[in-house]
Order: sequence, then structure tokens, then C-alpha cells
Amino acid sequence: MGGDYGPSVIVPAAIVALGKRPELSIILVGDEAVLQEQLKKHPHDCSQRLSLRHASQKVEMDELPSAALRYKRDSSMRVAINLVKQGEAQACVSAGNTGALMATARFVLKTLPGVDRPAITTTLPSSIPGKAVRVLDLGANIDVAAQTLFQFAVMGSVLAQATDRVDKPKIGLLNVGEEEIKGNEQVKQTAILLNEHKELNYIGFVEGNDIFNATADVVVCDGFVGNVALKASEGTSRLVAHYLKAAFNGSIYGRLMKILVGPLLKNVKAKMDPASYNGASLVGLQGIVIKSHGSASSRAFANAIEEACLQIEHDVPQRIKNKVTQILQS
Amino acid sequence: MGGDYGPSVIVPAAIVALGKRPELSIILVGDEAVLQEQLKKHPHDCSQRLSLRHASQKVEMDELPSAALRYKRDSSMRVAINLVKQGEAQACVSAGNTGALMATARFVLKTLPGVDRPAITTTLPSSIPGKAVRVLDLGANIDVAAQTLFQFAVMGSVLAQATDRVDKPKIGLLNVGEEEIKGNEQVKQTAILLNEHKELNYIGFVEGNDIFNATADVVVCDGFVGNVALKASEGTSRLVAHYLKAAFNGSIYGRLMKILVGPLLKNVKAKMDPASYNGASLVGLQGIVIKSHGSASSRAFANAIEEACLQIEHDVPQRIKNKVTQILQS
Repeated sequence: MGGDYGPSVIVPAAIVALGKRPELSIILVGDEAVLQEQLKKHPHDCSQRLSLRHASQKVEMDELPSAALRYKRDSSMRVAINLVKQGEAQACVSAGNTGALMATARFVLKTLPGVDRPAITTTLPSSIPGKAVRVLDLGANIDVAAQTLFQFAVMGSVLAQATDRVDKPKIGLLNVGEEEIKGNEQVKQTAILLNEHKELNYIGFVEGNDIFNATADVVVCDGFVGNVALKASEGTSRLVAHYLKAAFNGSIYGRLMKILVGPLLKNVKAKMDPASYNGASLVGLQGIVIKSHGSASSRAFANAIEEACLQIEHDVPQRIKNKVTQILQS
Repeated sequence: MGGDYGPSVIVPAAIVALGKRPELSIILVGDEAVLQEQLKKHPHDCSQRLSLRHASQKVEMDELPSAALRYKRDSSMRVAINLVKQGEAQACVSAGNTGALMATARFVLKTLPGVDRPAITTTLPSSIPGKAVRVLDLGANIDVAAQTLFQFAVMGSVLAQATDRVDKPKIGLLNVGEEEIKGNEQVKQTAILLNEHKELNYIGFVEGNDIFNATADVVVCDGFVGNVALKASEGTSRLVAHYLKAAFNGSIYGRLMKILVGPLLKNVKAKMDPASYNGASLVGLQGIVIKSHGSASSRAFANAIEEACLQIEHDVPQRIKNKVTQILQS
């Protein structure tokens, strides 16, 4: 029921995802009447693999996580996460309120042993063809200790290996400069921890611009810095799009040219569009939870479902648990 | 002598700036032989307002600030800042090593009374025509107390009023969300301080993307976050430019179109180019110090000189001192 468009986007996305993967089953959780109505609107031939679970409430996009946790025990979000806890579902995919999703997932599923805090992560586009860069944390954890940043590095490395298909993921620590003396206390301490663990492919400090050069496969930072970097990047993308629009709409010549180069520009726009990437993941939990962009289209939400399938196939929580345990014992 | 291109860019920039402002005089500081050679290469008719000051050393771009401070007492950077201290110059403009410039300026000029730490600030482009957004700090201060962030807000507000010509500058505090409960301890404490001072036009929290919407005229953050935001934005700009280039170069049709829309794209590129903006400023010091981008062109370095002229005209250090004193007493 979450996101800017709710079931009108999520139901067709589910049908698309079922069409792509014959082994997939989906449980749609939410207001049954609304979901039935949407299913009627979108003809499909996969009803055997599509079931409904009624939930009488929904978490609002601006609701406080604590309020959602306390007063929305029959929300679509809570019921969906309960299904993962009970083993009825192998993953939960939501376009809803990120804070509430994180709080609910953490409360219901709990973190993996050895993981202090779950993180939010996604991949960002880079100038190297076919190479996306995984960044974490993107906003779940504001003040974090070095030990937590170190765990983010381990989790990001596992994800990059499992779902981004990188062999020995290069881990970079986001900092204000590459020199050893720079950075805050947490970052310096984290660098020491990462250097101690040779089984991790730690390459040193990276800066904000390095994210988009794919200098590293995994970029580690606290949630405050990661969130600002992500949003500054989104804001810059939109600003360039705005300038391009103004340039092409500013004259008759420009408007004519727009028709001619439209397909080229559309292609670039798609590459920069956050919705065309997979959903963000909540990692470090005893279960798989994928967060789709709130404004996701059906195609983008289907990408988030695909990310859930990948994490199920590669048993990401178990792999993170194994890696964390292995590193704690080393 | 600093920056990626040294006197070959700085000398012609000085000549351009002198041409624009008949009241301006410039002292070129550095290796006299090199400067003379550059002056011969660039014909000019303003030699009465252009003088040389020899400095036997130069600070390298990757030199540690502490080393520059200790071992480079006759560097062009140090001598130029000394000229400001001695009252021989009203401002110093440098394209050199930022860390060394900040350390040297702070050591020689000292901070203004009531200012704990100087900050680095610049303006970034926005989607509102003619509206640039001032952001500080951009990397001089990594771990800062709320009181320091509050002083950044005061200094940014004075600069926006004096040189960016904004009447009552709207101050935004960079955070991960707009809700009151979000953010780290320093940001929350800073919000309390800003709310207490009604003479400042504090508008609340802003997010990374809001910088480019000009939601606020001044965006306040610590140097770690500001530096990452700035560089993530620069990286994103370059990534879009890279994708555009690839799209237009990828086919014969694209290459043909590139010729036709080249001027439109060049216009957009200029708007996004950091070098086309004024230099960054070191604020909070007893003197004016402007930091040009290391890779600045002559035109961009001339912009940095223009920024210095504006700060001299508006007596920015005195105005900051007055505002800080007034607020400390209120």
C-alpha cells in the first residue's frame, strides 16, 4: 500500500515480475478490495502464483516510525514483514515510509548476530560501463562507531559479491581527502580496522566524486554523510536536466533540435534516473527487506522485486552472518 | 605560484581583472623570473597597477599544511598572506593547496573575535535563475560543535547579504530529513541556537537536494558533510557530461547532432562548471583570503579576484565581526 502510487504501480509490477520468473510466487499485502480492483484492471495468467493477504491499516509516508510501530500493527508493511519472520515469505518488498520500514523490520526480524545496526544500501551509476557502485549507509544510522562502519564494509562486500557479481569487491571509505591524516575520528579508526583484515579488499579513502568513477565497488560512510551525498547527487542530476530543458525550450531552434536529439537525451536520462536502478536494501537483518523508491514506476518496482529474488537466490542474510562470524573469530 | 597551471593562468587573469576595475592594483607574489616571463607573454597597459614581490619557495599541492607552515616561510602563499597582515594588500587570492592556505591564513591573520574557527565557503548553482546558494563549511572543519555551526550560519548570512546581494538571507541547516526529530546531536543543538536568534532568517532543515533548488540562500553543515556534498555534486555533473558525450559519440547520427546542438550543450556545461563560479572564500579571519579552484582557467581565476574586490568593497571581515559581536551581546 506504500509509495506515492500504491497498488496502482505495485500490482502491475508484481505481474511483470511473475512473468519474468516462473519459479516466483508473490503475496500482495494490503486492502483486499483495492488489490482485487487493481488485479481486475491488469489482465494476467499467473493467478496461481499470486495471492492476497488482507491488512486493515497502512503506514503514511510522513508517519513517525515510532507511531507506525506502536499503532499500525495491522499495516500492510507490518503484516508483510511478519510473513518473512514466520517463514511464509522469503523477502519483503515495500515502497513505503523508509524510517517506518527500517524500524519495523528491525523490531520484527532483529539484526543478525554480530551486526550492531542494519544499514540501507543501494547502487549508484558510474562512468565505467556496467559497473554500479554500492554505497552504505544511506540514512539509517546517524552517529556510528568505527565498529559499525566496519560492519557496513563487511556487509557491503558480501552484497557486492552476491548480487552485484563483483569477484573481490574493492572497499573504499568515504572521506574528505585521500591523505592518511584527514578525516574524523570514526573514519580513522575504521581505516585501522579495515587494514587489519586482509581478507577484505580495502583500498583506502575515497572522496565524494570517486563514487561516480567506480574507484571502489563498495563505498562506506555513516548514514548522515551517505544520505547527503545521495541527495546532493540526485539534486545535481535534476539541475542538469532542468538546464537542458531550459536550453532546448529557450528558442525555436532549440525546440526543433529537441525533437531530433530527444531519443539520445532520453537514454542519458534513463541512465541517471534513480528509479531505473534496483531498490535499496535493508541489510544486517535476519531476513530480506527491499525498499523501492517511493516514486517508483511499475518497471522500477519490478526491479526491486528482482533484487529481492537475487538476494533470496544468494541467501544474502546467511552469507552476511557467515562472513561476520568468520571475521569476528579471526 | 599555486594551482595546476600556476603563473601561466594567474598572470593573464590578473591583467583581465585590472582591465575590468580601474581602481584595482595587484601584487603578483612568486618567482620573479617566472612572473616576468609570463608578463612578457601577455601584453598589457596596466603596469603601473601591477607590481611583483619575489618569493623563493612554493607550497606543493600535496604538501602537508603543517610542513608548509614550518618549512615554507618564504613561499608565495605565505608572503601573500603576510602582505594582508601588514596592510600592504587588502586581500589574498590563491589557487594553491587549500589545507596549507587555511593553516597559513589562520596562523598569520588569526580568527576574528568571537569566531572559533574559520570556514571555507562557495556558492553553488541552483534551478532558480540568478540565484546561487552559499554553502559552508566545505572541508576546513571536520568535527564541529553546535556553537561553531551557529557561527558558520552568521558568517554565511553576512556574506550572502554583502556579496551575493540577498536582502534577508534564508539560512537552512543541512540534515537528513526535515522532521524535527532527525539529525545528529550537533545539528539539533544548532537548530536550537538558530531558533533563539530571531534576527537571523533561519528556515529550518534542508536536505542535500534542496541545495540546488535554492530552498535556502545559505546552507550550513560541517566540513566533512559539505565536502562530500560538493564533491558528490561535481562527480554527478561529470557523470552526466560523460553519458552525454557517449550518447552523441556513439553513432554517426549522434555525431551529426552534436554539431547542431553543440552551442546549447556548451551553455549548460558552463552553468554547471565549478570554475565559472567565483572562488571559494576563507571566512572568519582578520583579513580576506580567496581560494580559486586549483584547475581554474584565467577567466575563473579572474572571477576569484572579482570576489576579493567585492569582499573588500563590503568590508566583509568587519561586517562579520560586527554581526558576531552583536549576536554575542544579544
